[in-house]
Amino acid sequence: MKRYRFVGFDDSFRNDRASIVGAVTEGSSYLEGVLVDSIAVDGFDVTDRIISMLGRSKFRELVHCIFLSGITFGGFNVADIEVIHEQLNIPVVVVMRRRPNFDDIYSALKNVDGFETRKNMIEKAGPVFDAGDVFIQFKGCGLEEAREYLRLASLKGNIPECLRIAHMIASAIIHGENRGRA
Amino acid sequence: MKRYRFVGFDDSFRNDRASIVGAVTEGSSYLEGVLVDSIAVDGFDVTDRIISMLGRSKFRELVHCIFLSGITFGGFNVADIEVIHEQLNIPVVVVMRRRPNFDDIYSALKNVDGFETRKNMIEKAGPVFDAGDVFIQFKGCGLEEAREYLRLASLKGNIPECLRIAHMIASAIIHGENRGRA
Repeated sequence: MKRYRFVGFDDSFRNDRASIVGAVTEGSSYLEGVLVDSIAVDGFDVTDRIISMLGRSKFRELVHCIFLSGITFGGFNVADIEVIHEQLNIPVVVVMRRRPNFDDIYSALKNVDGFETRKNMIEKAGPVFDAGDVFIQFKGCGLEEAREYLRLASLKGNIPECLRIAHMIASAIIHGENRGRA
Repeated sequence: MKRYRFVGFDDSFRNDRASIVGAVTEGSSYLEGVLVDSIAVDGFDVTDRIISMLGRSKFRELVHCIFLSGITFGGFNVADIEVIHEQLNIPVVVVMRRRPNFDDIYSALKNVDGFETRKNMIEKAGPVFDAGDVFIQFKGCGLEEAREYLRLASLKGNIPECLRIAHMIASAIIHGENRGRA
């Protein structure tokens, strides 16, 4: 049986300190790797950071799909999933528990600099699809493939285990112990 | 069927930065919690740090056994497993891949300060037992109970999953990506 490896990225931040974590799992349960780095709160470096974290990793050629916990990290540091896919040549799937309200998001974006740049990256991520328990955007694959990766990567519900784990680690790095949900 | 929860502590350090991580698992696979803190390289604070990390945790009353990856953290920061057990009232099992050579350890201890203090804590940990794939020392339980916890906590061989995971996280915090083995 084919072994699928997935990496999930999530972040946590407090004040001006933001940690981004990648958790690599085999399928939906076995943790094989952990990647840790920092990004700027409300910065513009998360796209490059994700590319470099996975790009320099021993898991670079082994991962079938990259999951992102939402499209914004460390506040409004927006991930450009099109660029991530182009650079790494791996499908990227953004996973959200709720359908995003773009009016609210664009409104909030006005509180930070670089409005057009951030808005552009969010728009580039494409349409939002309902995938059962979660909502997704993706690059480098079609809807059916994205849903299949979700299914293979998830243990309970439709939250990929690698995202759940990445959340716990990032949260613990910033707060001392994991809190909240992925 | 009774749900056993375990916490495993491991560390990683480079120069003067040492990270200690506690990973809480249900049985031998499902990661439920992550605890992260810092200790002083070659310091004397790891005992108190472990007590406070677990003591303030939501998992405080839920953990059946504490596993430690060796008895020294951040260089020669020695864990006093007798004090940890007394303060938390949870069995503590030190897990080592190789039988420790105390002559070599005490020799190396002479390169740091507080020789008697560190040596005393190592001696207090008691005799080393062969537990199959690993060697153990323990407080707060007998040999059979310690071996049973090991069995319940391990997926592959006799390294508790919580220790394997704690190692990966600590290693990634310090080096950017996990390396080596627990």
